[in-house]
Amino acid sequence: MSIRIGILGYGNLGKGVEKAVIANADQELAGIFTRRNPAEVKTASGAGKVFHADDLLKMKDRIDVLVICGGSATDLPKQTPVYAASFNVVDSFDTHAKIPEHYRAVDEAACAAGKVGIISCGWDPGLFSLSRLYAHSVLPDGKDYTFWGRGVSQGHSDAIRRIAGVKDARQYTVPVPEALEKVRAGLNPELTTRQKHTRECWVVAEEGADLSRIEREIKEMPDYFSDYDTTVSFISEEEMKAKHSELPHGGSVIYSGQTGERKHVIEFSLKLDSNPEFTGSVLAAVARAAWRMNREGQRGAKTMFDIAPKYLSPQTDEWLRAHML
Amino acid sequence: MSIRIGILGYGNLGKGVEKAVIANADQELAGIFTRRNPAEVKTASGAGKVFHADDLLKMKDRIDVLVICGGSATDLPKQTPVYAASFNVVDSFDTHAKIPEHYRAVDEAACAAGKVGIISCGWDPGLFSLSRLYAHSVLPDGKDYTFWGRGVSQGHSDAIRRIAGVKDARQYTVPVPEALEKVRAGLNPELTTRQKHTRECWVVAEEGADLSRIEREIKEMPDYFSDYDTTVSFISEEEMKAKHSELPHGGSVIYSGQTGERKHVIEFSLKLDSNPEFTGSVLAAVARAAWRMNREGQRGAKTMFDIAPKYLSPQTDEWLRAHML
Repeated sequence: MSIRIGILGYGNLGKGVEKAVIANADQELAGIFTRRNPAEVKTASGAGKVFHADDLLKMKDRIDVLVICGGSATDLPKQTPVYAASFNVVDSFDTHAKIPEHYRAVDEAACAAGKVGIISCGWDPGLFSLSRLYAHSVLPDGKDYTFWGRGVSQGHSDAIRRIAGVKDARQYTVPVPEALEKVRAGLNPELTTRQKHTRECWVVAEEGADLSRIEREIKEMPDYFSDYDTTVSFISEEEMKAKHSELPHGGSVIYSGQTGERKHVIEFSLKLDSNPEFTGSVLAAVARAAWRMNREGQRGAKTMFDIAPKYLSPQTDEWLRAHML
Repeated sequence: MSIRIGILGYGNLGKGVEKAVIANADQELAGIFTRRNPAEVKTASGAGKVFHADDLLKMKDRIDVLVICGGSATDLPKQTPVYAASFNVVDSFDTHAKIPEHYRAVDEAACAAGKVGIISCGWDPGLFSLSRLYAHSVLPDGKDYTFWGRGVSQGHSDAIRRIAGVKDARQYTVPVPEALEKVRAGLNPELTTRQKHTRECWVVAEEGADLSRIEREIKEMPDYFSDYDTTVSFISEEEMKAKHSELPHGGSVIYSGQTGERKHVIEFSLKLDSNPEFTGSVLAAVARAAWRMNREGQRGAKTMFDIAPKYLSPQTDEWLRAHML
């Protein structure tokens, strides 16, 4: 019996989930739900099954888990609690400061409905969070470092696009090699924001735009760029298309701990050709866990910290012990 | 309220668990149990509390979790099921082929007693197994590679010591750099045993021993060395003591997977100054999970696949969500 997955929101992440669900032998795509006109949405898989978001509740009995692929700023804080009242849900909410609040709202709705709502899934928050938790639990005396990149930050790219005179932009977050080396060597350095990452910006400007003003506005932008060594390069639309169409990402969680005098370094790293396709794959695996945990009687809000790893796998417990332990 | 930990077996691993328990603010050492004369055992921590293994059952009410630090060949298959009938237990059973059988024996005893028995914990099996499971669950289309080292294999060192004319020996398992590179690059190579690791042997021979015979016997030893490129170096006792007294280890699990055309590489790696101290730290964290899971009503045999990650941490769920997600 397949797990029937619904996808709400059909941007890059929704497409990543779609691809993952189709690749998973134990899952089937119940429907893609969008606020656009369904007739005008062409699915990447050609699977069809596009519906208007308003029709979601009517399909309650045909969906085992709803994966919500909206943005963290405005979509998820509303959508996840609302749909947790009717579905097992999974989201990738990543506004760290608001996780406790989001958790409470989802928990209340999911508990009342007898459903499971797993929030903040993906790789960070998600697999990176798990790495931090495992490392700290095993070696209480230590320090974790998270490096992101080399990869495209969509938030930073969007911030550049909002500057007057910018037609298109792509921003790569790049870890500073010397910082990585020191951390990997177990030296436990104190690192400022500037010492950990640099920011590389590729910009297509409108004709006649003042390039030096654009460059200055980028470099001085608070929060996004002013605390970093930032480079800005202006390129043509053709070059942007040829060299910067993909959304690669990745990074490392490095934990440097000790048992008395002896040092231990634990590292978890990702090198991803496509951030949304990988994140979508994590969400699909978590959807499997949501369904299994709910069938076993669990309810309420969860995070990946609450998921016994076996629930993420389509294999039986016996198979996992025999082949993967 | 502290979790009271008993340790059965006081070799390198038992000492590692002792050190970890003392470092964990939420745990206390209830006792170290040995088959030797307790009066003659000096503990590394000077904590005292050494008892004869025969007295374990008498202390049933003063121990929350018993960490069993025996060998997988003969100790654990007997000890873990026996003690699971009276205690929550944790072991590091690592004979892969016999895990299903060991699991069943522990499950039967622990279920009957209403206890939890978590088997095969450490880093491999253990944290490495978790990495394999997470990666396969997220990306079903892929392949995992495990590399061990550079580090001391105690089993291989012991095998050399059994050769006539050998006074002492230390064997390092070393991953082949070219193989690691290819796997990290996502090339999915097919690798033979010989192509993945080399074996480096440091040997102190008895005076007058036939060195070329010893070298030949090592290199031709089936299972242990004959499938590997092995180097043998004869050194003095002084050099052995000066350069090879520690038990470093580590390695990497590298998973190379894809979503259609796009590739993703997931790597988990460890660089450990002390294999037994790190493994002991994992067992102490798992002991915390065993106690918490049992208090919540769980029973029977478990592996790290069954442990929701939050149970390994001494922090509350709220704290973890706020600080580590």
